[in-house]
Amino acid sequence: MTNRQILLKSRPVGWPTLDNFEVATVDIPKPANGEVLVKVIYMSVDPYMRGRMSDAKSYAEPFAVGEPCQAGVVGKVMESNNGKFPEGTYLMGMGIWGNYFVTDGTGFQPIDASIAPLHYYLGILGMPGMTAYVGLTAIANLKEGDQLFVSAASGAVGQVVGQIGKNMGCHVAGSAGTDDKVAYLKDELGFDAAFNYKKGDIYKSVKTANPKGIDVYFENVGGPILEAVLNNINDKARIALCGMIADYNATVDNLPVGPRNLTALVKCSVKMQGFIVFNYLKECQDWIPLGAKWLKEGKLKYRVSVAENIENAPQAFLDVLAGKNFGKQVVKLADE
Amino acid sequence: MTNRQILLKSRPVGWPTLDNFEVATVDIPKPANGEVLVKVIYMSVDPYMRGRMSDAKSYAEPFAVGEPCQAGVVGKVMESNNGKFPEGTYLMGMGIWGNYFVTDGTGFQPIDASIAPLHYYLGILGMPGMTAYVGLTAIANLKEGDQLFVSAASGAVGQVVGQIGKNMGCHVAGSAGTDDKVAYLKDELGFDAAFNYKKGDIYKSVKTANPKGIDVYFENVGGPILEAVLNNINDKARIALCGMIADYNATVDNLPVGPRNLTALVKCSVKMQGFIVFNYLKECQDWIPLGAKWLKEGKLKYRVSVAENIENAPQAFLDVLAGKNFGKQVVKLADE
Repeated sequence: MTNRQILLKSRPVGWPTLDNFEVATVDIPKPANGEVLVKVIYMSVDPYMRGRMSDAKSYAEPFAVGEPCQAGVVGKVMESNNGKFPEGTYLMGMGIWGNYFVTDGTGFQPIDASIAPLHYYLGILGMPGMTAYVGLTAIANLKEGDQLFVSAASGAVGQVVGQIGKNMGCHVAGSAGTDDKVAYLKDELGFDAAFNYKKGDIYKSVKTANPKGIDVYFENVGGPILEAVLNNINDKARIALCGMIADYNATVDNLPVGPRNLTALVKCSVKMQGFIVFNYLKECQDWIPLGAKWLKEGKLKYRVSVAENIENAPQAFLDVLAGKNFGKQVVKLADE
Repeated sequence: MTNRQILLKSRPVGWPTLDNFEVATVDIPKPANGEVLVKVIYMSVDPYMRGRMSDAKSYAEPFAVGEPCQAGVVGKVMESNNGKFPEGTYLMGMGIWGNYFVTDGTGFQPIDASIAPLHYYLGILGMPGMTAYVGLTAIANLKEGDQLFVSAASGAVGQVVGQIGKNMGCHVAGSAGTDDKVAYLKDELGFDAAFNYKKGDIYKSVKTANPKGIDVYFENVGGPILEAVLNNINDKARIALCGMIADYNATVDNLPVGPRNLTALVKCSVKMQGFIVFNYLKECQDWIPLGAKWLKEGKLKYRVSVAENIENAPQAFLDVLAGKNFGKQVVKLADE
């Protein structure tokens, strides 16, 4: 039993590199009164973590330099001084990039390992799935028959967005960054249209994939796709801004280009709204049983990339930023 | 009694010029059964008309080439075959750039000439005032204590926005394009802060004028001010997109620059929403008595620029696009 952690060694400027991280080996902590010792089985790597590596104003506290990065984790209680989480309990919540940690349980919840693979609680039944559901319901008010478009459509959030859309009777189109991902969207997930945004004219691709225009756009990427979307936006459309990964590594010398056609928002009475999933707790709670039901009925599929060992967490994170993952990226730290 | 009209001679590309218009002298029409003959007393010129001179997709039908342009008007019924609008009735609605026209009354409403000067029904008690009220209430959910910022703040809409904000107990800041206008905002309308966006660094000016950040931004102009606003945006802020005048004359070769920091919408859970005032009829109707009450109580002031004669309507319109008007621009066509 060794306890390794990934510390934030320095704040990245622009694109992060492996040099921004370091591995530390530390003692396994002892849980105090009211605390439990958690062994991390899976940890999540997500694009939003890039924001927390900077000290700029954002919705979450920045990671501290010299301290372990934080992550959503699924783990098992190995030692308990807290009656709510007996030894052997599987639980999910915000932990660290590391093998073991102690917590008093605040913000953690027990999970049912019989419903789905444990790492689904970091993906389709966890924050990414909740994000898809909150964005489509609380923000975009998705309705049957809507023309739905989603970028980064094979990603952790995007693949859930598209399938919720199909389950709700929408026309669903998506973009992704490789032909394999595009084939997955069309052949496996039942998207009505999908294209590789790295090939061809993005303006034509968006138009072709959305022949009746766009009522709801679920924005995961930022950059020029938004401009192409606004050229095809329908009256009273809703844009849920989940993330803008293309812009996360911007620097003063390398600012993103903004969409030049924001007047479309006025002309078509469009609502564009950023959101943080955890401000919509009701919808988050609604999602777990609905997602579990749809999984059981075969109405949801989910693709996951699993990296192994804590030492590979930084590379897995860099891969997510670069779009090299296929589906939700997690890191497996231990057997169940 | 001559009847002159301003026709759209050709569709402008980029900035319109006087050559895009022509004057026609036509017979005074006879009202048919159910119709009335209206003498136009005041007509409105507004930035949104630029959009209707193009044939691009927008929320209103384009003006037809060779036909009179349309405008909000206040007029008097000279001859009536419609019991709802007897001879002598003052009324407001969508008319034409011309001295006389007939209508069956659809979309027109009688107005009370004793409450306020007639041209107020094209301004503070008409579409611009309603626009301010709808944007602040239905779109931006303005609350006491909010930090409110408005661009084009001395314009037809902006001056109402700022005063509603003050009447609701907000911190109000605004931008305008001349020192005279800035002085008017601060000295006459009671804005807490105002600046000339043509002088100095716009990023610093926005920051200084909004020391506690921005909860609500009422966007009238487009262009770089939005980027500066997003640098100072507060958590859960609301941006009401009323107009983006800076971008109305964009061409393919001269596209506006989009804001490069839209990620602020995600980081701060910001809602940005375009709207068309006539989709919010309840708020429009609510505004007339509230505006009239505030006018009577001295809680609203209103500055108007009056051009004279139908022949000067095109120049008055061009002046509005160029920001040369001070306050709401109307054209007086006849005595009451």
